[in-house]
Amino acid sequence: MTETNTGIDRLGEFGLIDRIAASVTNGEGIFLGIGDDAAATEQKEGLLTLSTSDMLVEGIHFDLSLCDPITLGRKSLAVNLSDMAAMGAKPRYFLLSLAIPRSFSIDFMDGLTRGLMDRAGEFGVTLIGGDTCAAPERMVISITLLGEQAPGKILKRSGASPGDLIFVTGTLGDSALGLRLLREGQRNGSAVIRHLDPTPRVLEGQALADSGHATAMIDVSDGLLGDLGHILENPEVGADIHLARIPLSPCYREYFVRDSGESYSLALSGGEDYELLFTAQPGRRKEIISMFERLGTPVTEIGGITASRGIRVISPDGETLPVEKKGFDHFSRR
Amino acid sequence: MTETNTGIDRLGEFGLIDRIAASVTNGEGIFLGIGDDAAATEQKEGLLTLSTSDMLVEGIHFDLSLCDPITLGRKSLAVNLSDMAAMGAKPRYFLLSLAIPRSFSIDFMDGLTRGLMDRAGEFGVTLIGGDTCAAPERMVISITLLGEQAPGKILKRSGASPGDLIFVTGTLGDSALGLRLLREGQRNGSAVIRHLDPTPRVLEGQALADSGHATAMIDVSDGLLGDLGHILENPEVGADIHLARIPLSPCYREYFVRDSGESYSLALSGGEDYELLFTAQPGRRKEIISMFERLGTPVTEIGGITASRGIRVISPDGETLPVEKKGFDHFSRR
Repeated sequence: MTETNTGIDRLGEFGLIDRIAASVTNGEGIFLGIGDDAAATEQKEGLLTLSTSDMLVEGIHFDLSLCDPITLGRKSLAVNLSDMAAMGAKPRYFLLSLAIPRSFSIDFMDGLTRGLMDRAGEFGVTLIGGDTCAAPERMVISITLLGEQAPGKILKRSGASPGDLIFVTGTLGDSALGLRLLREGQRNGSAVIRHLDPTPRVLEGQALADSGHATAMIDVSDGLLGDLGHILENPEVGADIHLARIPLSPCYREYFVRDSGESYSLALSGGEDYELLFTAQPGRRKEIISMFERLGTPVTEIGGITASRGIRVISPDGETLPVEKKGFDHFSRR
Repeated sequence: MTETNTGIDRLGEFGLIDRIAASVTNGEGIFLGIGDDAAATEQKEGLLTLSTSDMLVEGIHFDLSLCDPITLGRKSLAVNLSDMAAMGAKPRYFLLSLAIPRSFSIDFMDGLTRGLMDRAGEFGVTLIGGDTCAAPERMVISITLLGEQAPGKILKRSGASPGDLIFVTGTLGDSALGLRLLREGQRNGSAVIRHLDPTPRVLEGQALADSGHATAMIDVSDGLLGDLGHILENPEVGADIHLARIPLSPCYREYFVRDSGESYSLALSGGEDYELLFTAQPGRRKEIISMFERLGTPVTEIGGITASRGIRVISPDGETLPVEKKGFDHFSRR
């Protein structure tokens, strides 16, 4: 048997870049893609350029013993797509920066690339540039996603007024439950998939922006209460959330004892749901519900914006529950 | 004496973001800056959006025992500005993603921010977004820089034809010499400064693009021979480089024995010079020289594009020297 080098050091930096570039499909509006000092893309007249960056660090955001490279690639782009969805913008292009330990295999990199390109193809975005370098210990994936939308349609976090309704797409808490199950040794099931391979609500975000139904929007990445807090940064507004209305999946309900107080904690504060949280005037309720029916995506009215500061979580019997934990903070000691 | 926590964990993630955001000065064309899911910026009609990303990893690109945080911040932005300069584009906005060990101090982060904002102010670019997260061991800085230029003026790497002259700005090899001196214990002097705090040739790049004098351009980040190789990717062109014309600084000449064969190796292959390497038709020679005189930046004609593949390095007595090492490769085993 001859020894074969299957590590990325066999390819070299430019060999790796060529390999990634070979998997890129053409996109519209690209004057200059991968392979120069910068990419150059067209911006349609009257539209703004939206830009967002997310960094995923091995050992912090992902554990290579719990996920395969394809799924990691899919999630790396999905978290950025979710930010673009939260603006109601159309994603167009992305830049990919990778710090990779020299010991990583070509197979691993091919899987990661395939996952990225899967998601890219699905949402019509094209890789136009980035950077690759060696990492001393851990892999780091940093993506910048560019998108576009008309200035009058962009949905900011601010913009909610007292009397607005609060909606959320899909179900909450599944991703946090999935992470718990992964750590307990489970490797499949819908909660685990929600954690490893979230679906960004790109079409839903654009539909909300284009319809003008929503007044404010954010994606739920740090947990419902944490992200709702960002919508409430204007000190003149607060929110009432009705616990019984929080949308929970069958697998979530199955795992937790029904109706126990504890059962809502992951749904309220778990994070990484990548659902859209948005507000709208009550007059838009019907249109929103029928729009989401057409999209085939569940949407739930979970409460309303109030004129008094802070978040009140209200139990089914009308009691106000104490709100303890808010969102995820990378530097807090827990 | 009371114990005071000076670590970034005292600020928390959002406290750190607020602290960085507080140091940002306003820029033109920003519809939405830091603080939402994505930034939104205007693109002037008729111009393309240029985008480039560079990632700096502690232990690979920088050593915190050899540089202070202000200089590190300056360099982090400078390497991106150099890529934008190499396209002849005007830099406008940047996104900053940081993975930071929890043990890092607020003072360190303030220094890094100050260095970034110094360079940003100098070149008229504004921080519009990014990401911050914890790092298990090492710091990672990932920046995406956005810029603009008219499609007809962008200077690509390709575009050089046989007969074109080859020019380079400034002097070569100082950064690699500076790194060598730093490792030998030296902490100042012009070569050390060139390594730690490079100056991107942003105005020079734009002037070349706007004048139409150049046919191809790249910045020298991987070493002259490596980056010239990128300009020669078209297999129908090659280059002759005249060793005696390679611009060397007084400190570089002082350090190396004059005219020994070895003395040119860092200038040919050292990397991180962040000078501009460009080609132009012979008829533009005079205009180029007088344009750089007006800019106050040295420029040197070091050779010419040929019709035969490969790079020939020619000694003062007309001999062709063997070209061994090319550019820097992150994954090669050396």
